[in-house]
Amino acid sequence: MESDKVVERIYLLVIVTLISVLQNVFFAQKVEKECKTATSSTCRVSCANRNCMDTYPTFLAVMWCAGLCLSQAPAAFAGIIYLMVRQKYFVGYLGQTSQSTPGYLFGKRIIFFLSLMCIVGIFNYLLWRYFGSDYQEHVQTITSAASALLLIP
Amino acid sequence: MESDKVVERIYLLVIVTLISVLQNVFFAQKVEKECKTATSSTCRVSCANRNCMDTYPTFLAVMWCAGLCLSQAPAAFAGIIYLMVRQKYFVGYLGQTSQSTPGYLFGKRIIFFLSLMCIVGIFNYLLWRYFGSDYQEHVQTITSAASALLLIP
Amino acid sequence: MESDKVVERIYLLVIVTLISVLQNVFFAQKVEKECKTATSSTCRVSCANRNCMDTYPTFLAVMWCAGLCLSQAPAAFAGIIYLMVRQKYFVGYLGQTSQSTPGYLFGKRIIFFLSLMCIVGIFNYLLWRYFGSDYQEHVQTITSAASALLLIP
Repeated sequence: MESDKVVERIYLLVIVTLISVLQNVFFAQKVEKECKTATSSTCRVSCANRNCMDTYPTFLAVMWCAGLCLSQAPAAFAGIIYLMVRQKYFVGYLGQTSQSTPGYLFGKRIIFFLSLMCIVGIFNYLLWRYFGSDYQEHVQTITSAASALLLIP
Repeated sequence: MESDKVVERIYLLVIVTLISVLQNVFFAQKVEKECKTATSSTCRVSCANRNCMDTYPTFLAVMWCAGLCLSQAPAAFAGIIYLMVRQKYFVGYLGQTSQSTPGYLFGKRIIFFLSLMCIVGIFNYLLWRYFGSDYQEHVQTITSAASALLLIP
Repeated sequence: MESDKVVERIYLLVIVTLISVLQNVFFAQKVEKECKTATSSTCRVSCANRNCMDTYPTFLAVMWCAGLCLSQAPAAFAGIIYLMVRQKYFVGYLGQTSQSTPGYLFGKRIIFFLSLMCIVGIFNYLLWRYFGSDYQEHVQTITSAASALLLIP
């Protein structure tokens, strides 16, 4: 079964992607419900949705690159934490209008961690190609351990 | 020829992606043409384009996941239908200002079908891994048949 | 090492993706800084960022398809040039308010080149599959040479 080798390498990433799609649909329905009566300038939820959607392709691209280059389990774990941060960010906009809103960017630490995973993965590949030394297993273990650090608030 | 094995698994998805890119460029040029004179608040086409662009990454992610996890032909077929729905949605915004506009979301049924394909694909992989039973061929046949149901309006 | 075969085929694309993510974060921080005091209607940087983000998924999809279908080096090269064009476009919005702003679309030539690469790659695959003739090496050489034409302003 040729095709299952592909699925084996990506199934955790696919699951996180599906959860993020579910969240997108939830956000969109929230916007549709809340912004029907209000004008667009006063609708804060629409703004939160826009900010989330602006960073969504960036997040997807980095998560998939990290998962393919190094190891899918820590990448999917970081993805799950990103989705939780995003949920919290969106809910922060649902409160009182007088309340201060969260900033434009969120989840910078997770994007940074995933980018680092990509760089380590490519570096590891180049080391293996030009020097023949293979640290992949060690690197994967360290990455899995390091991903737990993302849980620190 | 190593690389053609990759192309074999994705070429239908690539074709649908290219068509969607063509459609994006068409939308963008329509916006550039229509909204040059009007102010941004009255330009309904710009709003339609924004809604289409907001859901574009979601669509791409789900289509590719479904195509990689299960089978590319039904995924590409669903993608084509999604693009047709999107075209109809966009054209619906081009009409009279007094006319009621379509809602914020569209193509929910197709996104749902593609998500289901992903879940079935992963479930099938896990069944094969832990129980050794392989239903991939049956599942692919059923999916191809089920994708025809999307044609029902 | 099974997984390094995957990395070998995509590592240039991953590097370009990482650079684009870095650029996205730079854009977002510029928007956060510039638009804090101004109202959203007068904030031209926010508009530039929105236009860039609208076309970002399109760019990513086409670059990855071109890289997977044909050859990653010319695709990554075209990606780098696209990022430079985008930087110039964004900086063009940072100038005086009286100055005329660049249009809605940018980098059309590069998107067109990448789409052409996808089509050539698929065509080449179909030729190989149905006629057994293999021109992949020739096509890759021609594409690498043609990508240099993108440097012409």
